[in-house]
Amino acid sequence: MTNRADGEFVRIARLFAPLAADYPGALGLRDDVALIHPPPGRQLIVTTDALVAGVHFRPEDAPAAIAAKVLRVNLSDLAAKGAEPFGYSLVTAVPPGMSFDWMAAFAAGLAADQRRYGIHLLGGDTVSTPGPALFTISALGHLPLGQGLLRSLARPGDRVWVTGTLGDAALGLACLQDRLVLPEAAAAPLRQRYWWPEPRLTAGQVLLAAGAHAGMDISDGLVADARHLACASGVALHLRAPDMPLSDSARMALAQDPGWWSAVLAGGDDYELLVTVPADRADQRLTLAAQAGVAITDIGMVMDGPAGAVVVTDGQGRDITPEQGGYRHF
Amino acid sequence: MTNRADGEFVRIARLFAPLAADYPGALGLRDDVALIHPPPGRQLIVTTDALVAGVHFRPEDAPAAIAAKVLRVNLSDLAAKGAEPFGYSLVTAVPPGMSFDWMAAFAAGLAADQRRYGIHLLGGDTVSTPGPALFTISALGHLPLGQGLLRSLARPGDRVWVTGTLGDAALGLACLQDRLVLPEAAAAPLRQRYWWPEPRLTAGQVLLAAGAHAGMDISDGLVADARHLACASGVALHLRAPDMPLSDSARMALAQDPGWWSAVLAGGDDYELLVTVPADRADQRLTLAAQAGVAITDIGMVMDGPAGAVVVTDGQGRDITPEQGGYRHF
Repeated sequence: MTNRADGEFVRIARLFAPLAADYPGALGLRDDVALIHPPPGRQLIVTTDALVAGVHFRPEDAPAAIAAKVLRVNLSDLAAKGAEPFGYSLVTAVPPGMSFDWMAAFAAGLAADQRRYGIHLLGGDTVSTPGPALFTISALGHLPLGQGLLRSLARPGDRVWVTGTLGDAALGLACLQDRLVLPEAAAAPLRQRYWWPEPRLTAGQVLLAAGAHAGMDISDGLVADARHLACASGVALHLRAPDMPLSDSARMALAQDPGWWSAVLAGGDDYELLVTVPADRADQRLTLAAQAGVAITDIGMVMDGPAGAVVVTDGQGRDITPEQGGYRHF
Repeated sequence: MTNRADGEFVRIARLFAPLAADYPGALGLRDDVALIHPPPGRQLIVTTDALVAGVHFRPEDAPAAIAAKVLRVNLSDLAAKGAEPFGYSLVTAVPPGMSFDWMAAFAAGLAADQRRYGIHLLGGDTVSTPGPALFTISALGHLPLGQGLLRSLARPGDRVWVTGTLGDAALGLACLQDRLVLPEAAAAPLRQRYWWPEPRLTAGQVLLAAGAHAGMDISDGLVADARHLACASGVALHLRAPDMPLSDSARMALAQDPGWWSAVLAGGDDYELLVTVPADRADQRLTLAAQAGVAITDIGMVMDGPAGAVVVTDGQGRDITPEQGGYRHF
C-alpha cells in the first residue's frame, strides 16, 4: 500500500473490513493483497472503472447512491459479457475534509449492494487528494471457459437486441439539472434510473447461454457504443429508431420536445445491454426476456461493413444518425 | 467503461493498446474487460495502490520514473508475498491539459518495466479530473496453492530479516528537497532509490520457497510497517538498530546528523522486504541472499506479545523507538 496514517486505518477497519469479512481470500483487509479463488473450471474476468466527482457523478448526491453507481457500472461491464461477479477492489481518493459520516454512508451503500449481488470487497487502497473525490472499482467475475459476449464477436446477419429502455438516465440527469421539466410522477423514475443503474446480470448470463454473439453495456450512449462494437467486430450496424424501447416518462419528454431523441441515441448512463444474436435465435427473444426478468427488444441488424459504421433510420427509412455520440472528456 | 471521448480512444489505441498486445486475454484493450488465464494449479493474488501527484510522487519528476513507481510499488506488494506477477490494470486520472507527449513518456516507462518484469497490461480506464493526476494500478500475480508470506503468519521465535538497505529513498527525497546536502556521488544513488524502487521479486520467491513465515514490503517506514505486521500476527517485534543495513550514502548522512535515523526507521518508500523466518533457517541467510541477488540482514526477533508492539534498541540496549512512524494523510 502507499503511505497511510492512522485515520486511514480507522476507516479501513471500521468501514471497509466488515465488507470483506465473508471472503477468506480478502485476509480481512489486514494484508496488502487478496488471494482469489474462482470456482474450478471457470475463467476469471476483470473490469475497472473510475468515477470522478463532478464529471461522472454529482457530488451532492446521496453517498449510498454514489457508492452504488461506482459499483454497478463495473458490474454492468461484467453483465455485458455474460459473467457472474464475485468480488471487487475499491480505491477511494477523497479530500482530507471528507467526513467520517459521509464515508460511512458510502460504505453502507456498498454493503447493501454486496447483499443484493452476492459479492465481496477483496481489497484496495485509500488515499487523500486535494482534488475532487475519485473512486475506482475493479470488479471480478467468472465465466464458462472459452465463452463470453466479446465486442469483437458480432457477425453480419445478427439481430441487434437491447435490454430495458433507453435514454432514461440521461433524461433523469436533465430533470436534476432543470433542463427538462416533467410532472413529478414522470420525473421521479427517470431520476432513479440516473442514480441507481441496474446491471443486467441475469440477462447477460441468459443471453450467453442462449448463444448470443457479441455484447457490451451502453454507458457512453447507444450510437457511440454501437460504433465501438461495430468497430471491434469489423461490421456495420443498422438501428431502427421507431423500434427503440422507451419508458412512459421518456415518451412524455419526446412529446414535449423531439430534441430529446438525443438522450435516447447518445445520452449515456443507460447501463442496458447491447447484444448481437444469430438470426436463428430471433424467435426466442420473448422467452429469454422472461428468463432475464427484463424486456429485450430487437432494434436492428448487423451488416457486412463498412466496419464501424452505425446508421440510425426513422420510420420512413431516413438517416437520422447523430454526428457525435458520447461524452467528451478531452 | 465510464463515459469517454475520442481523445481518450486515441490515447488508448496509440499509447496503451501496444502494452497489452502480447496478452490475449487483454482483448487488445478493445473490450471493457480482460479474461485472466493464470497458470494451472496456482492461486491468483491481486494488489492495488493509488498514487496522487504531490502526495505520493513529485509531479515534476520524469514521467517514465512516475510510471515505474506506480507499477513497482504494486509489484513490491506481490514480491512481499513471494508471488510472481503476470499483469496489471491501469487507471489514469489526469487533468485535461496533460499533454500527449507526457502521457507517451509515461507509457514508455511502463513498456520498459513490462519487459523488465515480464508482465502485461490487462485493461483499465482513462478519465480526466480537474484535480492533481492520480494513477491506480492493480497488479496480478500467482502463487503456489495454499502458500504466501502473509502478514499474519509471524510466530514468536522467528528471526526478522530485511532485504537491501534502509532509509535510502527517504534520504533521496530529502536531497531532492534540499533538506539534506551531500556530495553528488553520495546523493545520486539516494535519489535513484527514491525514483526507481526495486521490487524484491526474486527475494520474495526464494524466501517463500525456503519456508519463511510472514512478509510485507516497507512502504510506510520500517517501524510503522513492523507494527502492522506485529498487529496482524498478534506478536511483538524487537529490532536492533545497530544491525540495520545501511548504504554508504546513508552512513554519510547519519555521520553528518544522527537525526537522519528517522529516515532509516520511519522514512518510507524503501520497498524492501520485511520477513520473519523460523529460527532453524537462520544459517541459510547468506545462501538465500546469494540466490535472491540482494543482501538479507537479520535485524531482530519476533516475541510473544504484547500484540502489535515494536521496540527498537540501540547498541547499549536502550529503547530508541520513534513515537510516530509513517506518513500522515488525514
